[in-house]
Amino acid sequence: MSVIKELREYFTEIMRLNYIQALLGWDQEVNMMGYKSVKGRSEQRALITQLIHKRVTSEKTGKLIIEAGKLKDLNDIDAAMLREAKREYDLETKLPEELVIEITKTTALAQQAWQKARQEKDFKLFVPLLEKQVELQKEKAKKLETHPDLYSTLIDLYEPGVTYDWIAKVFNPIKPKLIDIVKKLNSSSDKPDDSILKKPYDIDKQFKLSFEIIKKFNFDLGYGRQDRSTHPFTTSLAPLDVRITTRTREDYLNECIFGTIHECGHALYEMGIKEELHETILCTGTSMGIHESQSRTLENYIGRSKEFWTYWYPSFQKYFPEILKNYPMEEFYRAINIVQPSFIRVNADEVTYGLHIILRFELEKDIIDGKVQVNELPEIWNSRFEELLGIVPPDDAEGVLQDIHWSHGYFGYFPTYFLGTLYGAQIYNNALKKNPSLPEEYKKGEFSNIMNYLKEKIHQHGAIYRANDLIKRVTGEDLNPDYFFKYVEEKFYPIYGL
Amino acid sequence: MSVIKELREYFTEIMRLNYIQALLGWDQEVNMMGYKSVKGRSEQRALITQLIHKRVTSEKTGKLIIEAGKLKDLNDIDAAMLREAKREYDLETKLPEELVIEITKTTALAQQAWQKARQEKDFKLFVPLLEKQVELQKEKAKKLETHPDLYSTLIDLYEPGVTYDWIAKVFNPIKPKLIDIVKKLNSSSDKPDDSILKKPYDIDKQFKLSFEIIKKFNFDLGYGRQDRSTHPFTTSLAPLDVRITTRTREDYLNECIFGTIHECGHALYEMGIKEELHETILCTGTSMGIHESQSRTLENYIGRSKEFWTYWYPSFQKYFPEILKNYPMEEFYRAINIVQPSFIRVNADEVTYGLHIILRFELEKDIIDGKVQVNELPEIWNSRFEELLGIVPPDDAEGVLQDIHWSHGYFGYFPTYFLGTLYGAQIYNNALKKNPSLPEEYKKGEFSNIMNYLKEKIHQHGAIYRANDLIKRVTGEDLNPDYFFKYVEEKFYPIYGL
Repeated sequence: MSVIKELREYFTEIMRLNYIQALLGWDQEVNMMGYKSVKGRSEQRALITQLIHKRVTSEKTGKLIIEAGKLKDLNDIDAAMLREAKREYDLETKLPEELVIEITKTTALAQQAWQKARQEKDFKLFVPLLEKQVELQKEKAKKLETHPDLYSTLIDLYEPGVTYDWIAKVFNPIKPKLIDIVKKLNSSSDKPDDSILKKPYDIDKQFKLSFEIIKKFNFDLGYGRQDRSTHPFTTSLAPLDVRITTRTREDYLNECIFGTIHECGHALYEMGIKEELHETILCTGTSMGIHESQSRTLENYIGRSKEFWTYWYPSFQKYFPEILKNYPMEEFYRAINIVQPSFIRVNADEVTYGLHIILRFELEKDIIDGKVQVNELPEIWNSRFEELLGIVPPDDAEGVLQDIHWSHGYFGYFPTYFLGTLYGAQIYNNALKKNPSLPEEYKKGEFSNIMNYLKEKIHQHGAIYRANDLIKRVTGEDLNPDYFFKYVEEKFYPIYGL
Repeated sequence: MSVIKELREYFTEIMRLNYIQALLGWDQEVNMMGYKSVKGRSEQRALITQLIHKRVTSEKTGKLIIEAGKLKDLNDIDAAMLREAKREYDLETKLPEELVIEITKTTALAQQAWQKARQEKDFKLFVPLLEKQVELQKEKAKKLETHPDLYSTLIDLYEPGVTYDWIAKVFNPIKPKLIDIVKKLNSSSDKPDDSILKKPYDIDKQFKLSFEIIKKFNFDLGYGRQDRSTHPFTTSLAPLDVRITTRTREDYLNECIFGTIHECGHALYEMGIKEELHETILCTGTSMGIHESQSRTLENYIGRSKEFWTYWYPSFQKYFPEILKNYPMEEFYRAINIVQPSFIRVNADEVTYGLHIILRFELEKDIIDGKVQVNELPEIWNSRFEELLGIVPPDDAEGVLQDIHWSHGYFGYFPTYFLGTLYGAQIYNNALKKNPSLPEEYKKGEFSNIMNYLKEKIHQHGAIYRANDLIKRVTGEDLNPDYFFKYVEEKFYPIYGL
């Protein structure tokens, strides 16, 4: 058997254990709400983690990687397979077991502390454990040493190959532009009104409609499910078993509808990976940013377009006649595209969203570099928030405490969200260039051409190509935020009568 | 660390893998209906099976068992733990891997063939694979050699320590008695009418009511779930995560109501195992027969009693007023206790049920002994069925093809169903002797005393005591079918006006 084939098969078992781990997690989120104890499940998850760790760090893995490394002229898939195997191996072998255990324990405690602090709107309750988590993440970065600076090493965990400098170069010129556009839009005398989205919408009907929408996007119940959970997410339990979850709020239509479309974007990526890669280490999205590009494309570039709603609005009127029967589509379209400074990232509109991310990106860099101390965070958050968005959070729950990420130690994750938006705009622009009639198709409820485009250009390749290579392969150029601004200006100025 | 402690902890990981395996199965049954492929899941299940096999048969297990075997004066729990570890070890080491793989493959094919044969009512389609399965099971029994005769070795897999001779001694005198009672009851001029159970009952309401019933039995959603599936079953995903599934039929109330109560009996057994045994090899029912005694007690001895329905019937009338409002409780009680020869085992009443089992028990013995050939089965089935129940199945789907068990190679499993009925009657008789006012409590919706009795006497002990020891501990005597006949006569003669 060739070394590459052996490596591939050796990692197949690891992938299967990963899928099993995903089921243990999915089931806990979806089916164990209200359970009095999840101790048994925690032990099972720990066991699988341990089995995966053992296999990834085994002598055999090390040998296979060294042997495979000697081979020349590998094809794209084999080279990528070796690259990812090595990445996993390094990640699991460079970190001392004590550090991994320490992080796991701290994360459990930090998450609890964060929850309490957020509930009581008291950042102080979170300080000691966040401080510890920051130190542990720095320690982790020192051990991994993928890049000379610690923050880049952390970013690399989520967006392989990408550094702080690279992202800063992208984000820096964007910041003033975004601030400018938000100001300009909000100076208009003809602003949208989104109160129509906050009426009492029956949640079962919302769920049903959201499923109708993703079905049209080609989400196939033969290869996955849609369920409900407290926090929406997407997970793969096998190459052809991809499940999304949805959160519904009776008083806010966006939560279910755009949340579901968003997760569907993630799911179609996973479902669309070509069979050749099934159960290999490449059977996953290539980076968080590219993954997010797919969810954002469905949620925003398609799901918030006028053509999309030309098709779907009559169904919404039929489902919710008492609310929407006499409400004009044009006004509904403006409502779902309202742009206004707000405190909570996950509810932010397409334009202000980037500012929420840039704030976190800059702050994380300063935290990891030791320029900002944990106990100073609320004050610095609020003053920077005001600089960027012109408003000051009323309390820390709506400010520095809003996201769970830092309690988990996820420093370097946030920037990928906005990178996804930018990648998505560039890819979607390319799709439109190749087939300008796509929006016209949406009006008739036809989404197969855009979905096929995404599958062919992005999904099928799984993790073969790194984000930057992929975007260049697909669009012919490196990441270029101009496409995002072109999109924003062409869409939002008319909505605001400018 | 003491050897016993080491053995205990070594098997904890095996138990956790078993729980994970159970989740993979539960999720497939409950959540993957309509999936186009379960290939990924099958691979995951095979992987866990392999990991369990590896660990059970490891040198380490062997050494620990030998070392622990040298210890003297073990307490009940430690002795049982060693006994069960040895049992597992022998089972997994005595069977050559090729035989295990051959059985797995044959089972998959045989199940398909059985399904097709049943659908087309054509036994011939099942013959070649059933023949192969019989040969493989005989081969398996030869390798295991727990008892001198092959069929006893197979029975021992489901009812540890029990032999063909022992069961035959129990069943032989029962057979004519049952035939006699059925005849006597059906000679009555005042027979119950069960057509009321076959009206259109809304399935969501049925499901809701069935959940109300098991909640009163102390089935706690903090430690489990009730879901729907094609075939009802109970499974433990952790010591405190026991899930039951329910099948509903709009045109047959029994399916959901008595099916749910039955599974609840299994679930409470698993949920009630004492904490000391959690995640050990003893954290399970001690035998299939004892397990079935618990489900039958809830389903029949409690769930089909007049006192139970005195409490619940008004709720049923409220849920289904259009059907039950003017229907008297007494007639409903008689309907759910109708006794009449029928073709399908799972729908059989309490009295004829034993005859369905005895038929299979005798037939299995003859098959394993080579006295009956597979291709003769339909003819022999029908003639023996007529002898026992006085009717002849119209086709093989309602005859020899009705059960899935043989396609899975489960020879020796059937007798445990009826043993459970007998064990249950004896245990329940003891409960009534200790607390004669139990039925009066049911009338008021109070089930905690009977549930506590079952938990204290049976559930908490898990697999510490073998069935025969347990029944003696609880009731002071060996299995005695007289209690079952006493119950049958005292209950059914009045129902039939005799």
